[in-house]
Amino acid sequence: MNALNLAEYTHALGVQAKVASALMARAPSAAKSKALKALARLLRENIDALQVDNARDLDRARAAGLPEPMVDRLKLTPKVLETCAEGCEQLAVMPDIIGEIIGMKQQPSGIRVGQMRVPIGVFGMIYESRPNVTIEAASLSIKSGNACILRGGSEAIDSNKALALLVGRALAEAGLPEHGVQLVQTTDREVVGQLITMPEYVDVIIPRGGKGLIERISRDARVPVIKHLDGNCHVYVDDPCDIAMAVRVSENAKTQKYSPCNASESLLVARGVADEFLPKIGALFAAKGVEMRGTPEALAILEPVAGARLVEAVEADWSEEYLAPIISVKLVDGVDEAIAHINRYSSHHTDAILTTNHLHAQKFLREVDSASVIVNASTRFADGFEFGLGAEIGISTDKFHARGPVGIEGLTSLKYVVLGEGEVRS
Amino acid sequence: MNALNLAEYTHALGVQAKVASALMARAPSAAKSKALKALARLLRENIDALQVDNARDLDRARAAGLPEPMVDRLKLTPKVLETCAEGCEQLAVMPDIIGEIIGMKQQPSGIRVGQMRVPIGVFGMIYESRPNVTIEAASLSIKSGNACILRGGSEAIDSNKALALLVGRALAEAGLPEHGVQLVQTTDREVVGQLITMPEYVDVIIPRGGKGLIERISRDARVPVIKHLDGNCHVYVDDPCDIAMAVRVSENAKTQKYSPCNASESLLVARGVADEFLPKIGALFAAKGVEMRGTPEALAILEPVAGARLVEAVEADWSEEYLAPIISVKLVDGVDEAIAHINRYSSHHTDAILTTNHLHAQKFLREVDSASVIVNASTRFADGFEFGLGAEIGISTDKFHARGPVGIEGLTSLKYVVLGEGEVRS
Repeated sequence: MNALNLAEYTHALGVQAKVASALMARAPSAAKSKALKALARLLRENIDALQVDNARDLDRARAAGLPEPMVDRLKLTPKVLETCAEGCEQLAVMPDIIGEIIGMKQQPSGIRVGQMRVPIGVFGMIYESRPNVTIEAASLSIKSGNACILRGGSEAIDSNKALALLVGRALAEAGLPEHGVQLVQTTDREVVGQLITMPEYVDVIIPRGGKGLIERISRDARVPVIKHLDGNCHVYVDDPCDIAMAVRVSENAKTQKYSPCNASESLLVARGVADEFLPKIGALFAAKGVEMRGTPEALAILEPVAGARLVEAVEADWSEEYLAPIISVKLVDGVDEAIAHINRYSSHHTDAILTTNHLHAQKFLREVDSASVIVNASTRFADGFEFGLGAEIGISTDKFHARGPVGIEGLTSLKYVVLGEGEVRS
Repeated sequence: MNALNLAEYTHALGVQAKVASALMARAPSAAKSKALKALARLLRENIDALQVDNARDLDRARAAGLPEPMVDRLKLTPKVLETCAEGCEQLAVMPDIIGEIIGMKQQPSGIRVGQMRVPIGVFGMIYESRPNVTIEAASLSIKSGNACILRGGSEAIDSNKALALLVGRALAEAGLPEHGVQLVQTTDREVVGQLITMPEYVDVIIPRGGKGLIERISRDARVPVIKHLDGNCHVYVDDPCDIAMAVRVSENAKTQKYSPCNASESLLVARGVADEFLPKIGALFAAKGVEMRGTPEALAILEPVAGARLVEAVEADWSEEYLAPIISVKLVDGVDEAIAHINRYSSHHTDAILTTNHLHAQKFLREVDSASVIVNASTRFADGFEFGLGAEIGISTDKFHARGPVGIEGLTSLKYVVLGEGEVRS
C-alpha cells in the first residue's frame, strides 16, 4: 500500500472499531462467554492448520538468520495453543465486571450517586514477535467488552492472520461484531504512527515489547499509553529476618528466570544480617554463575565464597535492568536507607522486603513508591495470573489509570450514574 | 527572568515538589487536618489584608479595560474567602483515604494480594483568573497527600501570591514541607511549556480554563492531563414521563445558570409526548428569553407559544456548547434514537433522561457513553460537591484514570501490596 492508502486503511480500522465498540459494550455476558469458549474450541480444532501457518513464519525467520531463541518465541506449539485455549476458557467463566455499580449513596439533595464500570472503548495493542499475544489480547478484549486493533510483529504475520481468522469465527458464532477484534493486515510501519495518533477512534494504546518501542510510542502518541518500561526490581533483606527464608526468596527472585521484568536485579542487605546472609546467598549465586556487582563492603564479605564472580559496582549498576545472571549488591543501615535507595533507583515496578519486623514491613509497604510492593515473597509473583486478575494485558509502571499488572479492570472505566426523582438544583 | 533562568526556576520547582511529595505522602492524617484548619483560620484572620492585595489585581484589570464580569471573577470578597475557609474545614474532617487497602485476597500460591491507595505524587495545575482556585487546589493537594505546583492567571498574581503565603504558613504550622504547595511566582508563559514537559517531576497536569488553553496543553504535554473540554449536555424527555417533572427538570437544567459546563444545551423529546411537553417548556423558555433552535417539526409545535424566540437548527447546533440562553430542540422516536443522537453529538460530559419507564432508564444508564448519566434529575447536579466527593479539582471528559468530577480519589493511585510468608515462584 502507498501512504495514502495506508492512511485510509488505518482510518477505516478506527471507524470500524468505534462502531463495533458500542456493540461490544452492550453485549450480554453470555455472548462474550460463548465467543471465548468457541475460540478455545477453534484453537484446539486447528492445531495442525495453525502449525502450517506458523511454519511459514518460522522458515522466514530462520532464512533471515534470526537467532534460535528469537525463533523459539515465534513458535505456536500444541502446548502454547493449549495454554491459549485454557486462558480463553478461564476468562469465559470469570464474573463479568461490566455494568457493576459501586458506591451508590444518597446525597443531601436526594439524588443517589454511584459509579458504573464500563469498557474503555477501543484499545490498540502494538506488540512484537510472540503470536500467542494475539489470542491473549483478543480474549481480554472480548471479556472486557472493548473493541481492539491488534498490530503484531511482522515476523509473526502469517501466524497472527491465521489466529485472527479464528477470532473472527468465534465472534460470529456468538453474534458479536466482526470488527470487535481487528488485526492490522499489513506489516507496514506507517500504520503504527497512525494508530497512536487517532484519539477520535482509539482510547488507549498498549505497547508490549522492548524499551525502545515503548519509548518511541510514548513520545509520539496522541492517545493515552499504558506503558511498561523497565523492571529494576529490588529485594531488601532486613534486620531482623528469617535468614533461611531470605536466602530462598532472594534466590528465587533472581534465578527462577532471568528474562522476566519482575526478576530481581538488585539486592540490598541490612548490615546487621550481612555477615550471616551474604555468604549463603553468595554460594547459591556462585553455583548458578550469577555475577555479583557489589560495593567494596559487600564484596569483602563475599570474597571467601568459592567460585563467586565478583565485580565492583559502579553508579550505573544501581539503575540497571540486567535481565541476565547479574545482580547488584549493597549494604544499608536498615529499612529507611533501603526505602530511600529503592525510591531513588527503582523503576517503580516491583520491590520486596524480607523481614520479621512488623513495623518495618508496614513502613516498606507504605513508603516504597512502586506498582507492586511485597513483604516476604518473591518479586517474581508480580503478574496478572499470580495476582488473581485472571489474565494480563501488560504491566504498567505508570501511576495514572492502571498501575502494576493490568487485567480486565484496567481496560474499563467508571462513569457516574445518578438516580433521581425529579430533583433540581437550587 | 530570561529563558535560561526560567528553565532553571521551573526545574527547581519540580525538584522541590518531588522531594516534598515523599514527605506529603507519608504525612499523618492529623498533620494534614491541622494544616487545613490552620489555613481556614488564616484566611479568616487575613480577610482585610487579602482584599488589599486583591485590590491591586482588580485595579490592574480595570486599567487594562477588562469587562466587569471578568473583573468580578477576580474578586476575593469576604464571602468568597469564607467559602474557601469552609471548604478547607470540610476537607479537614473528611476521612483520609490515603493508605486504605482494598480487595486483599489470598491467591493459590499462598500470597495475599490487595491494593493500597497512595497519592499520585506531584500534580501541576494551570488555571485562569479566579484566585480562589488557589485555595481549592492547595487544600485538595494537602488532603490527598500530594505535592502540587500551581500556575494561576497573570491577572490574579498578587492575590495568588498572598494566598500562597498563607498556605505556606499553614503547612509550617502543621510541620508539613514548605514545598508541598508551590505557586509559580512569575507570570511568564514559558513556565507552562516547561511544567507540562517534566514527566520526571510532574505526574499529572490539570488545566482549568477555556477550551483553547486545554487543547493547547493537551497537545503539548508530555505528562498525563486530566482534561475537561466542552460540556454539550442533553436532556431527553422520554415517552412515558411525568410531564410536570420533565418541565421542571428541563427548565432547571437549562436556566438555573447558563455558564456552567453542566448546563443543558440540547433538548431531545420523544414524539409521543412532544405535543404536551413542548408548549409548556417553550412558554417557560420564552418567559426567560431562551432562544430555541429546533428542527422544523419541533418549531411547528413551538410556533403558537407567545414570545418564543424560534430559530431553525443547523447541523452545527447539535454539537454546540452555547453557555448562553440558547437551546437546541429535536424530536426523536424514543430512547434508542435519543441514545444514538447523544452518543454521536454529546461531549460525553453529562446527559439525562426523564422517564417513568424502568427499562428505558436502565438502557439509557448503560448505553449513554458519558462521564455522568442521570435519570430524573437535572444535569446541573454533575459536580464534585453534589456527588459527595467533598471537593472537586475539575471535571474530566476523558475515560482514562478519572472520569467526571475529580475529587481526592482522582488525585490518588492504587499500588499492589503483597503479603507473603516466604513464598517463591515455581
